[in-house]
Amino acid sequence: MKAFFVTFEGTEGGGKSTHIKLLAERLRAMNRAVRVLREPGGTPIGEEIRHTLQHSAQNAAMTPEAELLLMNASRAQLVREVIRPALAAGEIVLCDRFYDSTTAYQGYGRELDLATVRQIIDFAVGPTRPDLTLLLHVPLAVSEARRQARQQAGPQRDRMEEADRSFFERVERGFAAIAAAEAARFHRLDATQPIERVREEIWARVRPLAEA
Amino acid sequence: MKAFFVTFEGTEGGGKSTHIKLLAERLRAMNRAVRVLREPGGTPIGEEIRHTLQHSAQNAAMTPEAELLLMNASRAQLVREVIRPALAAGEIVLCDRFYDSTTAYQGYGRELDLATVRQIIDFAVGPTRPDLTLLLHVPLAVSEARRQARQQAGPQRDRMEEADRSFFERVERGFAAIAAAEAARFHRLDATQPIERVREEIWARVRPLAEA
Repeated sequence: MKAFFVTFEGTEGGGKSTHIKLLAERLRAMNRAVRVLREPGGTPIGEEIRHTLQHSAQNAAMTPEAELLLMNASRAQLVREVIRPALAAGEIVLCDRFYDSTTAYQGYGRELDLATVRQIIDFAVGPTRPDLTLLLHVPLAVSEARRQARQQAGPQRDRMEEADRSFFERVERGFAAIAAAEAARFHRLDATQPIERVREEIWARVRPLAEA
Repeated sequence: MKAFFVTFEGTEGGGKSTHIKLLAERLRAMNRAVRVLREPGGTPIGEEIRHTLQHSAQNAAMTPEAELLLMNASRAQLVREVIRPALAAGEIVLCDRFYDSTTAYQGYGRELDLATVRQIIDFAVGPTRPDLTLLLHVPLAVSEARRQARQQAGPQRDRMEEADRSFFERVERGFAAIAAAEAARFHRLDATQPIERVREEIWARVRPLAEA
């Protein structure tokens, strides 16, 4: 049974974590070893970086350039410490966000130079690329409602969730552009459908990899 | 009176922090505003990154790629949050290490691709470059003795200070190569000389900037 690597992408509210959990259960029921990861984070060093990115009081002042470099520092560590060894051991790796989020959020969203964003991603990941990327798409109004609900639910303020609407419009355009440019790897799902339906659409894409 | 930016470079044991302090005192005695910084660090976000780089238990596992990106994340933040505003306000900025250390330690020392190291540095600093860089040179045996003394003095283990001798030989070659390639900006001093002598050599270089 072959190792493979699937990433889940999209703005807030698409149910990425729910569907990663459902997919991991299904694969484990087939006796496959499954590694579930998230970005930024996934290693002790990456979780420290995640903390610096998301929950420090000073984050309002973080520059887009520092943010891009921190995201990719976490990624460089995750790829070498966890993803490559897991794939080499025949495991299935499922990751909640990967470099497409960086292209969408830091490239399109924060309007950093896209060629530079790509160079830094290439440096961070080297030849380690997802076999399949599932874009769980919801309309902007849905992710906005989700972000607002999260902000009311807890005291922590996520830097991403404080950004403005035009930022998220650019992010959405970014995901659409990546999906168009890498149609063979990217699969876009309508995540406003019932959960069972989304689950089966995901499975239709993953099953050929799991049974290869 | 013109703002200017001076960086201090070199391996351990050259007295960088002592000479930065002496120079800052001299400039302040001329009624100049002086900002003293260090890398990595110098901002709240940068100090968090410094902690992740240097003092976490997991650092033995940090990949060279993550290290390079973290160094430059700290730098991108420092340049935009502190150095540019300070220079714009007419201050003198003195920094204990800057991007030449990254070229020497991560590029030459850890043998990362030098063109990529340069691209990432360029992204982090943009047009903000030192007017003068002072390389406080001591022989490898002197920095090695200094590193060993530091390790015995305290419980913390600095990742840099755990690396091996061939690593530091490559770092030294790196500093020599940069100094040769950028002779107009770089000034190499023999830091084994008496402290007063080094201080006056530094002043001979800085005085024209301070009196410009």
